[in-house]
Parts: sequence; C-alpha cells; structure tokens
Amino acid sequence: MESNVIFIPMAFAILGLLFMFIKMSWVKKQAAGSEKMQGISKAIKEGALAFLGAEYRLLLIFVVIASVALFGIAQYVDTTSILIIPAFITGAVFSALAGNVGMRIATEANTRTAEAAKTSLPQALKVSFGGGTVMGLGVAGLAVLGLSLLFFIFLGQFMTDGGDFYSDMTIVLETLAGFSLGAESIALFARVGGGIYTKAADVGADLVGKVEAGIPEDDPRNPATIADNVGDNVGDVAGMGADLFGSYVATVLAAMVLGNYIIKDMSVTTQFTDAFNNMGPILLPLVIAGVGILASIIGTLLVRISNNDAKEAQVQRALDIGNWVAIGLTAVASWFLIRWMLPMTMEMSFFGEGIKEIPSRHVFYAAMIGLAVGALISMVTAHYTSLGRKPVLGIVKNSSTGAATNIIAGLAVGMKSTFLSVLLFAAAIYGSYTLAGFYGVALAASAMMATTAMQLAIDAFGPIADNAGGVAEMSELEPHVRERTDILDSVGNTTAAVGKGFAIASAALTALALFAAYVTFTGIDGINIFRADVLAMLFVGGMIPVVFSALAMQSVGKAAMEMVQEVRRQFREIPGIMEGTGTPEYAKCVDISTQAALKEMILPGLITIITPVIIGLVFGAEPLGGYMAGVCVSGVMWAIFQNNAGGAWDNAKKSFEAGVEINGEMTYKGSDAHKAAVTGDTVGDPFKDTSGPSMNILIKLTCLVGLVIAPILGGHSSETGMAINEEEVSVEMAVESTDMASATVQYTVIKDGEKVSEIIMFEGTESEVYKQLEAFETGIKKQSGDNVKVIEKVDIKKR
Amino acid sequence: MESNVIFIPMAFAILGLLFMFIKMSWVKKQAAGSEKMQGISKAIKEGALAFLGAEYRLLLIFVVIASVALFGIAQYVDTTSILIIPAFITGAVFSALAGNVGMRIATEANTRTAEAAKTSLPQALKVSFGGGTVMGLGVAGLAVLGLSLLFFIFLGQFMTDGGDFYSDMTIVLETLAGFSLGAESIALFARVGGGIYTKAADVGADLVGKVEAGIPEDDPRNPATIADNVGDNVGDVAGMGADLFGSYVATVLAAMVLGNYIIKDMSVTTQFTDAFNNMGPILLPLVIAGVGILASIIGTLLVRISNNDAKEAQVQRALDIGNWVAIGLTAVASWFLIRWMLPMTMEMSFFGEGIKEIPSRHVFYAAMIGLAVGALISMVTAHYTSLGRKPVLGIVKNSSTGAATNIIAGLAVGMKSTFLSVLLFAAAIYGSYTLAGFYGVALAASAMMATTAMQLAIDAFGPIADNAGGVAEMSELEPHVRERTDILDSVGNTTAAVGKGFAIASAALTALALFAAYVTFTGIDGINIFRADVLAMLFVGGMIPVVFSALAMQSVGKAAMEMVQEVRRQFREIPGIMEGTGTPEYAKCVDISTQAALKEMILPGLITIITPVIIGLVFGAEPLGGYMAGVCVSGVMWAIFQNNAGGAWDNAKKSFEAGVEINGEMTYKGSDAHKAAVTGDTVGDPFKDTSGPSMNILIKLTCLVGLVIAPILGGHSSETGMAINEEEVSVEMAVESTDMASATVQYTVIKDGEKVSEIIMFEGTESEVYKQLEAFETGIKKQSGDNVKVIEKVDIKKR
Repeated sequence: MESNVIFIPMAFAILGLLFMFIKMSWVKKQAAGSEKMQGISKAIKEGALAFLGAEYRLLLIFVVIASVALFGIAQYVDTTSILIIPAFITGAVFSALAGNVGMRIATEANTRTAEAAKTSLPQALKVSFGGGTVMGLGVAGLAVLGLSLLFFIFLGQFMTDGGDFYSDMTIVLETLAGFSLGAESIALFARVGGGIYTKAADVGADLVGKVEAGIPEDDPRNPATIADNVGDNVGDVAGMGADLFGSYVATVLAAMVLGNYIIKDMSVTTQFTDAFNNMGPILLPLVIAGVGILASIIGTLLVRISNNDAKEAQVQRALDIGNWVAIGLTAVASWFLIRWMLPMTMEMSFFGEGIKEIPSRHVFYAAMIGLAVGALISMVTAHYTSLGRKPVLGIVKNSSTGAATNIIAGLAVGMKSTFLSVLLFAAAIYGSYTLAGFYGVALAASAMMATTAMQLAIDAFGPIADNAGGVAEMSELEPHVRERTDILDSVGNTTAAVGKGFAIASAALTALALFAAYVTFTGIDGINIFRADVLAMLFVGGMIPVVFSALAMQSVGKAAMEMVQEVRRQFREIPGIMEGTGTPEYAKCVDISTQAALKEMILPGLITIITPVIIGLVFGAEPLGGYMAGVCVSGVMWAIFQNNAGGAWDNAKKSFEAGVEINGEMTYKGSDAHKAAVTGDTVGDPFKDTSGPSMNILIKLTCLVGLVIAPILGGHSSETGMAINEEEVSVEMAVESTDMASATVQYTVIKDGEKVSEIIMFEGTESEVYKQLEAFETGIKKQSGDNVKVIEKVDIKKR
Repeated sequence: MESNVIFIPMAFAILGLLFMFIKMSWVKKQAAGSEKMQGISKAIKEGALAFLGAEYRLLLIFVVIASVALFGIAQYVDTTSILIIPAFITGAVFSALAGNVGMRIATEANTRTAEAAKTSLPQALKVSFGGGTVMGLGVAGLAVLGLSLLFFIFLGQFMTDGGDFYSDMTIVLETLAGFSLGAESIALFARVGGGIYTKAADVGADLVGKVEAGIPEDDPRNPATIADNVGDNVGDVAGMGADLFGSYVATVLAAMVLGNYIIKDMSVTTQFTDAFNNMGPILLPLVIAGVGILASIIGTLLVRISNNDAKEAQVQRALDIGNWVAIGLTAVASWFLIRWMLPMTMEMSFFGEGIKEIPSRHVFYAAMIGLAVGALISMVTAHYTSLGRKPVLGIVKNSSTGAATNIIAGLAVGMKSTFLSVLLFAAAIYGSYTLAGFYGVALAASAMMATTAMQLAIDAFGPIADNAGGVAEMSELEPHVRERTDILDSVGNTTAAVGKGFAIASAALTALALFAAYVTFTGIDGINIFRADVLAMLFVGGMIPVVFSALAMQSVGKAAMEMVQEVRRQFREIPGIMEGTGTPEYAKCVDISTQAALKEMILPGLITIITPVIIGLVFGAEPLGGYMAGVCVSGVMWAIFQNNAGGAWDNAKKSFEAGVEINGEMTYKGSDAHKAAVTGDTVGDPFKDTSGPSMNILIKLTCLVGLVIAPILGGHSSETGMAINEEEVSVEMAVESTDMASATVQYTVIKDGEKVSEIIMFEGTESEVYKQLEAFETGIKKQSGDNVKVIEKVDIKKR
C-alpha cells in the first residue's frame, strides 16, 4: 500500500473526472427550452468557443516560443531535462482542456437553468450548480491527474539506483515545474485576456445600448449582447478556472519541492527512509489534493434546497453547507494523512536558526492555518463588498454629493480593506512558518487549495445563473423566471466576491511557496535586501503590478471603444434593428472583443514573463528574489485594493435598485446619487474584473518563471546536487601531506553558493596537529551553526 | 583650517540666515497696497498663525510624550544619552521656527506682490520670489545651523581621549538623531495636518461657494475664502517647508552615520587619521550642505525678468537659470570638497562582498547620480502632469465620454508614471551603491538636497503668487493685476508639480540612507526576507501606506463636510451676506479647518510612529527592517501614483479654461467634458495635496523611528561599541582557568546581533593548548571573513 501511494491521487483524480462526466451528461439531459432559448444559448456557446479558438491559436505560437526557450535552458543546464517541454505542453493542454469543458457546460447549463426556473427554483439551482460542479471537478481532476501521472513518469526516468536521492528528485521536480508553467501560461491568457474581453463587451454593450439607445440590459436588439454574455463565461468561468488551476498545481508543486528539501535536511546524519519509497513529505501534498477531490464531491452532493419560494439566504446556506462539509472533511483527512505519511518528528533547517525538530502534528496545524486564513480573508472580502454592510453603505451615502465623493469613498474602501487582509496573510506566513518552516507555508496553501473543486463549483454557478437570466430576458420569458434566476444571480455575485478573496489569498500563498522553493533551488544565501542590487530590484518589482494594472485598465478602454463603434455602426446600417425586425450581427461584436482582448494582453504578458528572465540573467539570483518579493508585496496590495474597491462600487450601485436610505430619504434608481454610483461602478468594472484578478497571475507567474530559470542562476549544479544555505557550510578537508611537525590541510568552504578552497598549515607534534585540526574544525563549526556537515574527515598520516 | 572645518557649515548657515533677514526686510518695505488689501492679507496671516498656534499646542503635548519615551530609552540603553531630549526639542523648535518665518513672510508677500503687479510684472516676480527665498534660506539655514551646532556640542560631550572613536562617535550621532526626529515630527504635523487643512478648506469653499451659491473663486462673500487662502500657505508653504527641512536634516544625518561606519571599516588594520580631527567622511555631508546654501543664494540672485509683458515661458526660464546655476555650483564645489576632505582611497565594507578599495572620486560620481536623478525624476513628473503633454491630453480626451473614463484615464496616468520614476530611482540606488556603498547612496541624497534653499524658494513663490491673485480678486483690483499674478501662479503650478517629484525622490533616497544607517546601528546581519517573520513584516509594511492614504483621504472628506455645513449656516443666518453688506465670519471657518485637520491627523500620525516601535520590540531588529523596506517600496509607489494622478487631473481640468481640442472640436469650460474633468480634479485634490505628499513623511519617519530605537533592538551596547555585520564577528575570549593540561575558554560570538557565550575546553600541554586556541580562533575567522577584529586577546597563564 504505502509504496504505491502515488496511485491514490491518481485514483481520486479519475474518480473526480468520472463524477464530472456523470454530472455533465445529467445536465445535458435536462430540457433545453424553446428553440429561441436554444438559439441564444448556442450563440453564446459559439462566441465563447470562438474566443477559446482564437486564444488557442495565439497560445500555440506562445507554446512554440516558450518550448524553444525551455529547450535552450535544458541544453545549458544539466539539471534541467528536455522533458520539461512535454511537461510544459501537457500543463498548457490540460488547463486549456479544463477551461474548454467548463465553458461548454456553462454555456449549455444557462438555457437549461432558465428552463428549469420556469417551474422550480430548487431544480434551477441543481442545474446551474451542476454546471459549476462539472467545471470544478474538471479543473481539479485534470490538475491532480496531470501532476501525479507526470511525477510517476519522471520518477521512473530520473531516479537512479544509488544516486543521490535529493539531486535526482530535484531534477524530477524541476521537470515537473514545466507542467505548472504551462498551466499558469494558460491562466495568463484566460485571466488577463478574458478580463479584457468581458469588460470591453460589457462596457461597449452598456455605453451604446443602455446609455445611447436606451434599451435594457440583455436586450436582443443590442448587437453586443451576445458578446457581453460570452464575456461572463470567458472571464468568470474560464478565467477563474484557469487561475485556480494554476494556483492549485503550483501550490502542490512548491510543497513537493519543499518536501524534498526536508528529506535533504533529514539526510544530513543518516539516509532518510520511510515506507513511501522514502518520499512521504513529497507525496503528502499530492495525496491531500486527491482526497480534497473526494471531499469536494461529497460537498457538492449536499448543495440543494427544497423550497420553491426560497430566498437568497437559503440558497447561500445550501452553498455554505456544502463548502464547510468539504473543508471539514479535508481537515479531518489531513490529520490522518499527515500522521500516516510523515515521520513523527522531522528535522527541518530554519534559515538563521539551524536545524529544528518538528513534530508532524505541527504540519497539520500549519495546514489548518491555511484553511482558517482562506476562510477569514474571504469573510473580510465579503465585509468590504457586501450589500448592506458599512463600507458599501458609506459609498452609497457619498454618492449623494456626486461622482467625485463616490469615487473617493470607493477608493478608500478598497485601500482600507488591505488592512485586515494583509494582517491575516502576514499572520498566516508567520504562523505556518513558525510551526513547520516553508514546508508549513506550502502545506497551508495546499490545504486551502485542496477543495478547489468545491470553490470553483460555487464560483462557476454564478455566471451560469447570470447567463440564465440573460437567456430569459432575450427570449422574453415570463417575469417569474427572471426573478428566480435573479435570486441565484444575486447569490452568485456574493460568491464571486468571496471567490476573488479566495483566489488572491491562494495566489499569494502559492507565490510565497514558490518563492521559498526558488530560494532552495538556487541555493542562495536567502534574499538580503541590505544589498543595493536586491533593494533596487525590490523597488522595480513593486512597480510592476502598478504598471501592469494601468496597462490592463487602458486595454479595456481601447477595446471598449472599438466595440462602441461597431455597435453604433450596426444600429446605423442594419435596417429594422431597433424595431426587432433586423437581426444584429452578434458574431462581429464577439470577434472584435476577441481580437482586441488577445492583442491587448500581449504587452502585459510579455512584461510578466520577460522581466524576471532579464533581471535573473543580468543581476543574478538574489536580486531576482528581491524582484519576486517586490512583485508579491505590491501585487497583493493592488489585487486586494482593486478587487474590493470594484466589488464595493458594484454593490453600492446595486443598492439603489431596491432603494436605499440616504440622510433619511429613500433614494432609488434614476436619482442623481444613483448616477454617481453608476460612475463608480464603471470605474470599478476594470478594477474588479480585469486588472485586479490579473494580479494573481502576475505574482504566480513571476515566481514560477523564477523557479524555472533558477537552475541557470544558482550555484546549484548536478555535480554537487547540494543546496547550501548560510547555516550549512560544508567543510571538505583533504590532507595533502603530513609529517611529525606539520600538516598542510586543504579545506573547502562553501560560501554564498561558491566553493572557496584555501590551504592552512598546522605545525607541532602529531598530537598537537591532531588537536589543532580538531580545534580549527570546531572553530569553523561554532561560527556557522551546529549543523555543519563535514563531507570528508581529515585523516592525518604520520610521516 | 582643517581641524576647524566644522565652522564652515555654521558660517554658511549664519550667512544664509543673514541674507534671509535682508530679503525679509526688503519684502516688508515694499508697498502693501490699499487698506482693503492689507485687511485681507492680515486675515490670511492671522488664519495661518492661528493654525500654527493650534498646531504648536498639540505639538507641545506630543513633544512631552515623546520626550518621556526618549527618556525611557536613554535610561534603558547605554549608548543613548539623555541629551537626545534637548536635541529632539531643538529639532522640533527649529523646524517650527522655519515654518513660522516662512508663513509670516508668505502672508506678507502676497499683498505686496499684488500691489507690485499693478505696475510691473518683473517687480511682482521679485517680491513673490523674495518671499520664497526667505522661506528657503530660513529652512536651510536653521537646519544646517542646528545640525552643526549640536554636533559640535555633542563632540565635546561624548568624545573621550583614548576611547574607541567609533563607539564614541556612534553616541554623538545617535544623540544627533534626536534633532532629526524632532524635525520630522513637525513635518508630520505640518504636512499631514496641513494637507488635510488645505483640502478641507478648498473643497468646502468650492462646494458651497462655486457649486451651490454660484459665486466665483476667492469671492469675499464666501465665508470659507480666507480659510482657503490660509490653506495654500499652510499646505504648500509650511507643509512643503517642514517636509524638506526633515529630508534635509535626515539625509545629512544618515550620511554622517555612514561616514562613521567608513572610519570604522578603515580602522580595522590601523587607526584612521586625517587632518579633520579624523572625521573627514563624517563632516563632508555637513560641509556640502553649507556650501549648498551659498550656491542657493547665488542662484536666487539670478532669478529676474526685465520684460513687463513676459509670459510663463520667460518666468520659467528665469527660475530655471537660478536653479541650474545653484546645482552646477554645488556640483563643482562637491568635487573640490570631496578631494579635500576624503582620503584618496577608502576601504568600505560591502555586504557579502567584503572590504573594497574605493577612490574618493567615486563618492563624487555617486553625488552626481543624486543630482542627475533628482532632476530626471522632476522631469518625469513634469511630463506626466504638464499641460499640453500626451498624458494630460489623454485624460482630456477621455473626459468627453464622461466622469468614469476621465477617472480611469487619470488613475492609469498616475500608475504608469511609476514606471520611469521607479526605474530611475532603482538605478540611483544601484549606481551610487556600486560606486561607493551606502555612503554613496547617502551622498547622492545629500547632493540632491544641498540646494534645498533654492528648491524651496521656487516652491514657495507659487503659493505666494496664488494668494496675490486671491488678494487681487477679493479687493476687486483691475483685471490686468490678476492677469499678471495668474502668469506667476501658472508657473507656480508647474514648479509645484516638479517640486513634488523632487520631494518624493529626496524622501525616498533619505529613507534608504536612514535604512542603511539603521542596519549599521543595530548591527544585524542584513535584512533577509527568506525569514518568514521578515517577509511577513515586509507585507505589513507594504500595507501601511495604502491604509494611511485611505485615512488621509477620508479625513479630508470629513473635514470638508464640517466646513460645508458652517458655510451653509453663515449664508443662511448672516443677513446681507450675499449682497455684500453683511460680513462673513471668516475666523469660524479657519477655526473649523484647523480643529478638523489636527483631530484627523492623530490616527495616521500614531500609526506611523507606534507601528515600528511595536514591531521592533515584539519581533526584533530584522523584521523591523523588513517592515521599513515594505513601507518604503509601497510608499514610494503610492506617493508617485497619487501625486501624478492628482497633478494630471488638475491640469486636465485647467486645459478646458483656455479651450482644448477633442476629436476635432474645441471644447471649453462649462461643457460636459469639462464637468467630467472637474470630477477628476476633485478626486485628485486629496491625492496630490494630502495623501500623496504624506507618503514622504510616512517613509522618512518610519525609518527615523527605527533608527532612534535601533540601540534597544541591536546587540549593540556601549561596552563593545561595535556594530557587527556578518563579515565582522568579534570574538572575545577570557581564560578562566588554565593548567598544564587544559584551558577552559569562555568565548563570546556576536551573531544576529546577539551575544552568545559558550565555554570550550582544550586539553594538552601548554604548547598544545596555545596552538589549539590559535587554530580555533583561525577557524572562527576563516568562516566569518577576513576582517575579524578580536577585541580581547586570550592570555593563557600557566597553573
């Protein structure tokens, strides 16, 4: 059993995919509604697939270029295998496949949800959440399957009998990093490109349709309306899915790298052995991910309501129950898995503090910190962005004095929301590290990500319900259908905001785990910002998220302008379009959004990928570490700020729909205050749907690119296979000649990742020489901590 | 001569102050205009002094509390002298005095400028720039005088004959840090409080006056109009003055600390000696500052125009000539001073790279980098915020589609402006460090700040001209007077934007120099962000500027609301106010702004001062270093973003005043696009005048508080008087008992700033024991670099 534990995650991944197929065929079997509804749904589906198709073409070019670059690295660096290229391609294909499956089912589930809503709200929830479940399980199943399969293959490829376990495993994991890089590259296209797409279509549709032509949202006469609905799927379903796919894979990978590092730490004195082919700490995160799929399946089965007149609160409760059961099951399973798979106590090297004995239960506590902080950051996000809470009400109040005060209030809410989020995040780093080092940090992230399938199911159901509303509107169904889908949509908006909090928290923890893995891979002496080059790059890194956000925001503006012109042209040129007798050319709008999104994402994408490569090659490993830290710190701040400001503005505007009390007066849609709130919402749109979520990709991809090029930078090579930090200075001594009166000792100190050889002479009697040697060695050890490993003992021969 | 070089900066400081008095009496001698004009000017002056008075009362409380805290530190830490309290109070008093002089002259110069403008534009420039010169020389003169006087006194107090130079000097400089802390505390009150004041009054006056009552800006019927004009002085004159006073002092101080560190590095082998009482590197920054005052005086004399019909370009040219001459003279003088005062080559310890030989001309090059980067960052600022340039025109264009697109465009301009600014800044750190270590970074900052007197003269003349326009409007002078003051005001707006760029650049470099001084003071092993506690605090530090900005923005909103209500009340209750027969109660509005500003600045002020203290005491020196770095990185980003976005929005709005072409159509004031631009400007107001400039204070004060509490945190105490870094591990050995067969050695290693004592036994014959001891010591040294200084040699006695 133990030695075949790698098959556990594989089995659960396959189970997840099977369950996904069952759910998928169930959703497809549901009634799809009238021909008109199916026609609209089909148009959305085709638009979404058209975007994916165009994305894949651009991606193909990217994959070819990246593969050539990886080929170069593999030629240049011994520890990087050529197999990183198929790993990279597999990662890209699996992520794209998961996105494709999710998009297809989401665009099929929308009309079926609308049809179900004709008769039953519980059934509508079941269909829409079923669609979300397919997406969630597709992402989680493919991610775990890909990781465990490739890991299994690379084990067979690179682990040599009698070779150094740590250095062999390093090659396995470095090659596996290709899978993660492939996945995250897709996320870049899906999240950034998708973010630009969705907002360009949204803004374009609203500006001409609502404002200029005065027709309602989702009106079939608006040529951009299909593009708008496609955008919901492209941005919120495929973008979020690819983002979490990337986080999920990267987190597990980083935890595996750090697990390998533990094994190395524990092999200082004696070879590490356990029942899991001596790789329990490496396999653990993979197994937890697998078990998380099972927990998520159970959770999804519990999401149901029975009351046809249910309100938002009951729907929310049903989702919460499923979510908490999944999380709870994962927590319980983690306890047993950690006890089973890890040694009772582990020796971990803590930077600057030497080796510590860590009981395995501390790893469990670290994982629990991950679960708790994930939940708490989601709650903070909900507080700052939910209807009826103080922050949103403050923005509403400030809308009464105009757009400017609305904007200032919204900016302030976003900025203030960083306070608790960052404190929680800092506490998570500090707590999980204190408990179990960077392995603890990675396990905290892994535990948080273990229920990704469930999180995504909850996230993806919102856009499906939103689309169902659109289908209902466009096919002119009875009002009660739209009312029911609106209930689901409203819950979906809350889960979307919370999901964004979860996505940031997971991206940030993932980035940190990758950062730690990067440091161990390069074998540098930590990242010291009291070096000017590191400090300078910390500033440069801090600037990148700001500029990236600006570029993303501007891209939305440009793309929206193209859309506006196209919609205006159609209104002008197509006869009978406003009377409903002429058919708008929906596909043209879809095409414009697609082209604009993909064109506009190239520059920010290049900045993300190329900057760390340049910094690494020009300045070296430690400045690149400073850059990565700068990107993470600033990126987390700007992600929270932009997401929460955008979410708060959105709900401040929505507050007016039901009417809201300002200074004792009920104020509604159409008032001046509402107009001010609409301005805020328009500013917030690119914040919360484009630049904000893009930060997740930016910080993860930066750290991942660093990890992939780490072998080029570090002093780390296959010959030594040793990653050295300050506390572990290896002293190699070889006596060249001895005599009764003197010993010439050549000794090698590994410092700052470089070997420095020097010769020292001791003179005296044989006894004196022995004692001097010993004292010298003690001196070296005293200064460099207790965990010095003397590779070769000195053997003094008498002359 | 050489040994009395300390009197050079004193002499130049006194010369500067004398020149200030001459200018002041000249300005006062100018005709002050009609009784009505003098009345208005008096009201502004009284309002400004009322604010200062209220500020001083609050300050007194703060000074008492801070003094008690410093007393506590002085009791607890041996190296901190009780004299830090008078130093602190002197710093506060000198900065307050400089602000007071500047405010008085600015409020006297305004009406005299208006009077001069009746007949002559050159004369109006002379008067307004004369007022600015008084401010500039007051700040620079008092700063240099205070620093050099206190340094001289503390030298006599703490330097002991035969004592360790480095440790005695450390006490001198730590005590001198009190002066800097006092100065920066005033800056906190003046910049943050003043920033809230000026915008509360501005927004309050505009909202009720312009928008509700429909009367023009600066109309005497508006009760808030005096408060508005007071605000210009409080924020732009006193706030900017205190900000630069603080930067100036802190920069020179940090350079002195790092100069002391060079002397220590050079004393490893032999005692450092030079003709300047062995403290050339410490005195150099002070002397450069003194010479900078002379250069500034010469520069100010060149600012003049002769043509009565001159336009903005000619006025700008006159300012530029003065500025460049001052900078050029400083550069030339620096060359000779550096050759004169520094050894031809210096030994500096570079973190992780050991000792390097640095020729003194490299220090000059580093200083030139400071001058160049200061100028370049100012140019970048000008590009992003000036009328008629691409960024501002882009915002103008986006105003045509409404407030939302105007806001998005403005945010994007601010965000994008971080790109070049941060790259330049990073290049400055990297370049000046590579040339001459952190001493080079500090000298770059010192050179940049050397012409502070000139910079402030240019900065302060703008608000004086602005006020002169206000006086002209309120006293209903002829239109050509306002036209002339408008020319000066318009130039003043440009110099204000550029000045903000200069203020950020100087604050950032100052903060870095303080950061470097902090690391040397605490004697820690650098700041390694591969430690979770340091990394966590890096995130917390990154969050503080964001939350601080939000609080500052909200404070403006709250204070403005109070102002609005008061103005509405006066319009309602004072009979004949709108007809000009009733007199508004100006003082009430001044009072409201004053109280609100001071009340609202308490929370951000406390956060700034207390957070680093808590982090230092709870987590230690290295995490506090991480926090400081986080505050700096994030603070610089948010300062640039907010200042430049605000400046760009302001000028986008101003573009409409002369008319601007949008999509081929001329668009003017009153158009929808203009209204959208006004919204942007209103959002930008707190950005550029409150939260943006506050960042300067936040980052400097954070580093300064760290520096002052550094002795509590580090392993640094008066017994050893040694600042230790990784490369310099001191080994103290004391033999407790020896016999023929064994030696028990108690040795102390200073690691991570903490002393660790251990006992080791060597056994053998006397000769063996000696040799073992030596080998042991060699071993320790080998591992910790070549520049180990053994404080106490072991002396083995025979039994």
